[in-house]
Amino acid sequence: MKEFLLLTPGPTNVPPRVLAKMALPMIHHRTKEFQGILERVNANLAKVFVTKNPVMTFASSGTGAMEATITNLLSKGDVVLSFSAGKWGERYRDIAKVYGMDVKSLEKESGEAFTANEVREALKANPTAKAVLITLCETSTAVCHPIQEIAKVTAASGALLMVDAISGLLCDPLRMEEWGVDVVVCGSQKGFMLPPGLGFVALNERAIAAISKSNLPKYYFNFADTLKAMKKNDTPFTPAVSLIRGLDEALTMMLEEGLENVWKRHADVSAWLRKEVQATGLKLLSKAPAAGLTAIIMPEGIASGDLIKTMRDEHQIVMADGQGELQGKIVRFAHMGAAGTMDAAKKGFAAFSDAMAKAGSPLEQKARS
Amino acid sequence: MKEFLLLTPGPTNVPPRVLAKMALPMIHHRTKEFQGILERVNANLAKVFVTKNPVMTFASSGTGAMEATITNLLSKGDVVLSFSAGKWGERYRDIAKVYGMDVKSLEKESGEAFTANEVREALKANPTAKAVLITLCETSTAVCHPIQEIAKVTAASGALLMVDAISGLLCDPLRMEEWGVDVVVCGSQKGFMLPPGLGFVALNERAIAAISKSNLPKYYFNFADTLKAMKKNDTPFTPAVSLIRGLDEALTMMLEEGLENVWKRHADVSAWLRKEVQATGLKLLSKAPAAGLTAIIMPEGIASGDLIKTMRDEHQIVMADGQGELQGKIVRFAHMGAAGTMDAAKKGFAAFSDAMAKAGSPLEQKARS
Repeated sequence: MKEFLLLTPGPTNVPPRVLAKMALPMIHHRTKEFQGILERVNANLAKVFVTKNPVMTFASSGTGAMEATITNLLSKGDVVLSFSAGKWGERYRDIAKVYGMDVKSLEKESGEAFTANEVREALKANPTAKAVLITLCETSTAVCHPIQEIAKVTAASGALLMVDAISGLLCDPLRMEEWGVDVVVCGSQKGFMLPPGLGFVALNERAIAAISKSNLPKYYFNFADTLKAMKKNDTPFTPAVSLIRGLDEALTMMLEEGLENVWKRHADVSAWLRKEVQATGLKLLSKAPAAGLTAIIMPEGIASGDLIKTMRDEHQIVMADGQGELQGKIVRFAHMGAAGTMDAAKKGFAAFSDAMAKAGSPLEQKARS
Repeated sequence: MKEFLLLTPGPTNVPPRVLAKMALPMIHHRTKEFQGILERVNANLAKVFVTKNPVMTFASSGTGAMEATITNLLSKGDVVLSFSAGKWGERYRDIAKVYGMDVKSLEKESGEAFTANEVREALKANPTAKAVLITLCETSTAVCHPIQEIAKVTAASGALLMVDAISGLLCDPLRMEEWGVDVVVCGSQKGFMLPPGLGFVALNERAIAAISKSNLPKYYFNFADTLKAMKKNDTPFTPAVSLIRGLDEALTMMLEEGLENVWKRHADVSAWLRKEVQATGLKLLSKAPAAGLTAIIMPEGIASGDLIKTMRDEHQIVMADGQGELQGKIVRFAHMGAAGTMDAAKKGFAAFSDAMAKAGSPLEQKARS
């Protein structure tokens, strides 16, 4: 069996320490032993979300957690401002539409990011807006939004700032408490270095107060019940025991490294990769680059799918193609979580260079041109 | 670290073969390798649900899958008949209520099961009913419902038979196709011998036809999107890769044993245990016993919590207390999945006997009285 280096925007590689914890014999969830794990996990989750409030964990993909923020914090007919810079921004918008919200959809060209000023203008034009939906790292274009600046705008408004940080958290800095971000959604298979299967939601006091105002039905994803159960180190429904034991280990590893160091590692790797790519003459898609992945625009005549196949078949390295209209046009080279290391990025770049050469467009030539 | 024998109605012990698969290095889900796994898993799921139609897998607990059947197959205001013989029947009923259905709630005393005739009478009294909600194995009381007989009644009506088989499937026989059961819901942590974190839903043609009639909003749990993606061996959202690899192995193990043999093993173990318990003079709660667990009524003066503590601390065996009003009054001795073996049941019964003796009520005495 081949082992692949996953330089994709999720799932990312899972460290052996974490895999080992998930393979431990099953334990029952209503026991002191598991309550102890939950207590530590919840305390450590708050540290990596940088919040004083509880961070909820659901057995679901990140999309389930996104939907939960819509059904638990908003109501049918609410005015919602959606800032979409790509496929993932569109997903948050589409969920709000499904639940009958009055969604004002703002969109950006691929590679561009919204500014805090654009959010301010939109809120001025829609003073009754109940929420601003935005993505931290938009993985379809490798764009990172200026959440700290945007939070200053939303904090002074009546709208909750709801951030899909599924691909960004633990790569791009996000200080929920200090910045005044109301809602942060995440998933397990990116910066968290875990398999897919867990969704996370963190709320500040303003968001917690919004729970009781929502009139949408919900059962499995129920924030009030979840927060209540968390006070007793419990969960309303059977938790995903093995994934949570993996989460316990992954959090321990990240806190051993230190959150600032985790962020710096991703910043360093992404800065190095951008410099290398640009030195070859290739262009980057993102005008506001994220720390967790880099989107490289293919030169004329080179299809990203061919490069990705060469890297996979000959180097056991997996990168991602563009999505939708960007398919074939960009290579998404991720450096997230356990794959967010200089070593992994160097291996990836060597494979990328080899694949470009085999596709008839060696990078050296580009650098010289 | 102590290893516990989990004789609880979920989570159950996970076989080492399955644990090992879940600890394999992560693979990406949009690859031929994972598509191959999904294709085999989906084919094998259909075999254990005994259906020709696709069985959907969600990253969620079983409750999420139950909710999904309500939001995808029914509409606000629909008349729904809930047959509740305990806590889990109540859960299905409560979900339907949350979504604004006109729920007619039928209830049974603890330990009793509904008959097909009672379902027939209720349908006669409510001819516009769109669904019958019922539990295969009601783990709060160890009751098993006669689904085959009930399906004959519902098949001749306009109501879908929606069966919560979370704790019953792979223990109590259920032949979805042959019996004409419309909807079967399951979870991973019982008969499937997996950790919690996956929910399953199987639909027959009549249930599939109901999807387009439902007017309730949904996004993460969306049957139409899921069935469409399954045609390409894909999933609408990132699947729980490690749990699905475990599922692949667990299904392989069960099909190696043979579905009939899996059912017979549970039937044999449960029949043996009931005989042993009754020989001591102790009484069983269930008048229609399930194959996956046995509920033993405590004699006067013995609290089930004390026995459970002794078994856990001194024998590393975990059994469950009663829920709600039954707390302290029954011991729920499960024999499900990998723990559904004569060896595990004998170990459990020896521990139970020892705990009864230590509580001052030795079983031998009971047998003699």
